[in-house]
Amino acid sequence: METKLRELRGRLAEVYDLNMANALLSWDQSTYMPPGGAAARARQMATIGKISHQKATDEEVGALLDDLRPYEASLPADSDDAALIRVSRRNYEHMVRVPTDLIGELYAHSAASYDAWVKARPANDFAAVRPYLERNLELSRRLANCFPGYQHIADPLIDLSDYGMRAESVRAVFAELRAELVPLVKTICAQTPADDACLRRGFSEPQQLAFGERVIRAFGYDFSRGRQDKTHHPFMTKFSLGDVRITTRFREDDLSDALFSTLHESGHAMYEQGIDLSYEGTPLANGTSAGVHESQSRLWENQVGRSRRLWEHFYPQLQAEFPSQLGDVPLDSFYRAINKVHRSLIRTDADEVTYNLHVMLRFDLELALLEGSLEVRDLPEAWNARYREDLGLTPPSDSDGVLQDVHWFSGSIGGAFQGYTLGNILSAQFFAAARAAHPQIDAEIGRGEFATLHGWLRENIYRHGSKFTTDDLVHRATGGPLDISPYMAYLREKYGDLYTL
Amino acid sequence: METKLRELRGRLAEVYDLNMANALLSWDQSTYMPPGGAAARARQMATIGKISHQKATDEEVGALLDDLRPYEASLPADSDDAALIRVSRRNYEHMVRVPTDLIGELYAHSAASYDAWVKARPANDFAAVRPYLERNLELSRRLANCFPGYQHIADPLIDLSDYGMRAESVRAVFAELRAELVPLVKTICAQTPADDACLRRGFSEPQQLAFGERVIRAFGYDFSRGRQDKTHHPFMTKFSLGDVRITTRFREDDLSDALFSTLHESGHAMYEQGIDLSYEGTPLANGTSAGVHESQSRLWENQVGRSRRLWEHFYPQLQAEFPSQLGDVPLDSFYRAINKVHRSLIRTDADEVTYNLHVMLRFDLELALLEGSLEVRDLPEAWNARYREDLGLTPPSDSDGVLQDVHWFSGSIGGAFQGYTLGNILSAQFFAAARAAHPQIDAEIGRGEFATLHGWLRENIYRHGSKFTTDDLVHRATGGPLDISPYMAYLREKYGDLYTL
Repeated sequence: METKLRELRGRLAEVYDLNMANALLSWDQSTYMPPGGAAARARQMATIGKISHQKATDEEVGALLDDLRPYEASLPADSDDAALIRVSRRNYEHMVRVPTDLIGELYAHSAASYDAWVKARPANDFAAVRPYLERNLELSRRLANCFPGYQHIADPLIDLSDYGMRAESVRAVFAELRAELVPLVKTICAQTPADDACLRRGFSEPQQLAFGERVIRAFGYDFSRGRQDKTHHPFMTKFSLGDVRITTRFREDDLSDALFSTLHESGHAMYEQGIDLSYEGTPLANGTSAGVHESQSRLWENQVGRSRRLWEHFYPQLQAEFPSQLGDVPLDSFYRAINKVHRSLIRTDADEVTYNLHVMLRFDLELALLEGSLEVRDLPEAWNARYREDLGLTPPSDSDGVLQDVHWFSGSIGGAFQGYTLGNILSAQFFAAARAAHPQIDAEIGRGEFATLHGWLRENIYRHGSKFTTDDLVHRATGGPLDISPYMAYLREKYGDLYTL
Repeated sequence: METKLRELRGRLAEVYDLNMANALLSWDQSTYMPPGGAAARARQMATIGKISHQKATDEEVGALLDDLRPYEASLPADSDDAALIRVSRRNYEHMVRVPTDLIGELYAHSAASYDAWVKARPANDFAAVRPYLERNLELSRRLANCFPGYQHIADPLIDLSDYGMRAESVRAVFAELRAELVPLVKTICAQTPADDACLRRGFSEPQQLAFGERVIRAFGYDFSRGRQDKTHHPFMTKFSLGDVRITTRFREDDLSDALFSTLHESGHAMYEQGIDLSYEGTPLANGTSAGVHESQSRLWENQVGRSRRLWEHFYPQLQAEFPSQLGDVPLDSFYRAINKVHRSLIRTDADEVTYNLHVMLRFDLELALLEGSLEVRDLPEAWNARYREDLGLTPPSDSDGVLQDVHWFSGSIGGAFQGYTLGNILSAQFFAAARAAHPQIDAEIGRGEFATLHGWLRENIYRHGSKFTTDDLVHRATGGPLDISPYMAYLREKYGDLYTL
C-alpha cells in the first residue's frame, strides 16, 4: 500500500505542479505581461490545463484510487492519508466526467476573454465582450452538462467551488438573509449618511502600499512566503505553500480601496500559508471551498479590519503617515467613514451591510443565464433593472455596471458569486467562535496583536486545507452548521452603535 | 502530407508552450519570487521540463518526421516547411538520446543550484556551492555521454548551444584571436588608463532606467511586446514572439553597468522580436545559436552602443538628465570613459578588448573540468591562477572570482561560454556587412536613427530564426565564413584612435 500511495502522491504532485505553473501564467498575465503576450498566453494556459487534466484523469490514477480503498477503510476517519485518498477520489470522479478538450477550450477562452474585458471595461464597450460572454455561457452549460442528474443546471458549477451546496440550498440561505438585510439597509439608508470625505484627500501610492503591508505583516502574512503586486482586479494566488501572493490596485483619491483590499487578500493568503506543509503537492493543499476562503478574507477585512479596536491601535500610525490628510480627523470620524453604509454601484467598494445585495443579484442573474430565461444581450438591462430594484440606483455606464467584475470574463458563469455571501456569514461565525474560545482577542486587537486570533484560525481552519468539507469544518470549529445569526448579530451590534436601528 | 505537417506542428506547439511556461517560472524565480517559493519552484521546473522532454521525444513525433521525409525532399532547400522539418528532426534526434529522468534531474538541480548561488555569492562562500558544482559536473558529463563518439567530451555540449562547433574548432578560433589580442591588451594597458570617474558620480536608479529605455526604444525594442525588470544577473527571456523580456540591475555608483547591459539585452530581444511570426510555436522561433545571439547583443551594446557617433546624438540628452554629474564632462571624456581598457576581474564589466580573455579562460576551465584534469575543489585556485596569468590580477574573493557568473550554477558545465567570444567576432562581421550594404548607417546613428540598421538585421538575421545554421547564416549575410578580421580591424581602428598602437 505504501508503494501505491507513493505512486498516487507522485501523480498528484505532477498535476499540482502543472496547475501551479498555470497559476503563474495567469498571475503574470494580470500583473506584468505586455499586450503582445496575450494571444500566446491564452494558448499556453490551455495547453497546460489540458495536460494537467489528462494527467489528473489518467486511468492509472483511478486504478490506484481503487487499489487504495482497503487501506483507506483501515484508517481512522480523520487520518490525513484517508482524507488525501477521499478528496483525490472526489476530484478524480469529478474530472473524469469533463472531456479534456472542453478543459482546453475553457482555458483558452478564459484567457482571451480576460484580455477582451481588460480593454472593454475602461472603454465601456459591452458589445465588444458580448460574444465572449455568449461563448462562456455555452461553455459553462457544457461543463454543467457533464454532470447529468442535477436539479438545477447551476448545481454542478456551485458544487465545484462550494462542495455540498446547490442552487436550492444557496437560495434558501440567501432568502433568509435577504429578509433581514433589506429592512436593515432601508433603516440605515434613511438616516444621515456618514461623511467619508476624509478618505478622498489624496494619498500617495507608495505610502498606501507601505501602510497596508505594515498592517498585514502584523496580522501574520508572511512576506518571505509571498508578495504583493498591482493588478486591475485584486486577487490572491498560490504557486506553492511557500509562495502565496496577493495583488491590489491603488486610487490616490480613495484611501480605503487598496487598504481594505490588501487586508482582504491577506486573509485569503494567510489561509493558504497556514495549510499543513505535509499537504504540499496534494489536493489537500487548498482552502476547502470558496465560502470558507471568503470567510477568511472577510474576517480580516471586516470583522477585524473595520473594527474600532483595530484602529484604536493603528489610526495614530495612519495619521502620522498622512498628517495633512488625517491629522484633523478624529478616530471616531475615521471609523464612521470606513463603515459608511450607502447604496452604491460597485460590489468591491460596497459596505458590509449592502454588499450581500450585490452578490445576491449576481447569483440570480447567473442562474437566469444558465437556465436560458435571460439572454446575454439582455444582461446589461437586467443588471441595471436589478440595481434599481435592490439598490435604488441605475448604473450610468456598463463599466460601472455589468462590466465591473472580472469573474464572468475569466471563469465559468455559475458558481462564481455565492461564495462571497457564504463567506460573510461564516466570517462572523468563525470570529464569534474564536472570541468565545479566547475572550482576550478583543483586547489584543486593540494593542495591534493578532497571535491568538491567528493561532485559533491556524488550528481550526488553515492547517486543515481541504481535509474537511465546509460542513464538517464549520461543525468542528463552531459546534454547529452554517448559521446567519452570528452575522446578523454582528451587523446589528456594530451598526446599532453607528445608527439608530 | 498537410495533415501530417499539421499534426507535427500541434505537437511542436505543445512542447513550445511547456518550454515557454518553464521560461516564465525561471524569469519569476529571478525577478519576483519570494524565498519561500524556491523549493517548489525547482520541482515545478523539473516536472514541466520532463513532460516537455517526454512529449518532444514521443515516438509519434519520430514517426511523423519519417513520414514527412518525401514531402521535405520535394521542397526547395530554403523553404520554411523544409527548414521546420529539418530542424525538428535535428532536435528530435538529439533529444531522444537524453533520458527523460536526466532532464528532470538537470532541471531540478539547476533550480536548486541557482538558489544556492544567489546566497553564496554575496557571502563569498564557495564551500556552500561546491557540492552543487560537483553534482552539476557529474550531470553535465552524463549529458555529454548521451552522445558517444565525440572527439572531446565537451563537443556535445558545445554543439547544443553552437550547432556545428566543437572543442577543437573553438580552440582554433580562440588561438588565432588570442595571438592578436594578448599583444594588443599589453600595448594598451602599458599606457595611461582612461579616467572613468565621471561614470561613478551617483546616478539615481529611476533616471538610469528611463534613459536606458529611451535608447533601446530608439534602437527598435518593442515595449508592447516586452518589458524590463530587475535581477541579480541581467538576461533576455522569451514567453512567445510577442513577449520577449529583458532584465537588468542597477548600481547607483556606476552608470555604465545598467546602461550597457540594457543595450546588450535589447540586442538579444530584438533578434527574437524580429523572428518571422509564422514560426511561432515551432523550433524555428529561436535564435539560431548562442554565438549568433551574442553577436546581436554585442552589436547593439558595443559596435553601436559604445560608438562615438551614437553619443554625438545621445550624450547631450544624458547630460540634460544628469546635469550635476555630467554637465562638466565633455563628450570626448565620456567616450573615453565608456571605452576604458583595463585588466579587471569581472567578465560582465570588462571592456571590449580584454573581454575575450575572460571568456577564453572560462572555456578552458570548463574543458578541464569535463576532462577530469581539474577537480571542482581546485577550481577557485585554478581560476585565480588563470586571472593572474592572463590578466595580471588575483581576485580578492571568490565572489569576484569563480562565483561571479551564474552559468555553471544554472545550466550545464560545458558549452556555456564560447558563444560570447564567437558573438564578439560575428558582431563585427555583421555590422561591417550592414555598413557595406548601407553606407548611410553611420550618419543615421549620429542622428539617433536606427531603422536602416535594424531593417538590415531583421532581413538578414532576425526573421530567419533557426531556419539556417550559423555557418549558412553567416555566409548568406556576409558572403563568407566566420572570420576574426573584421573584429580585429574594428578594435584596431577604434582603439587606435584612443591609444597609441
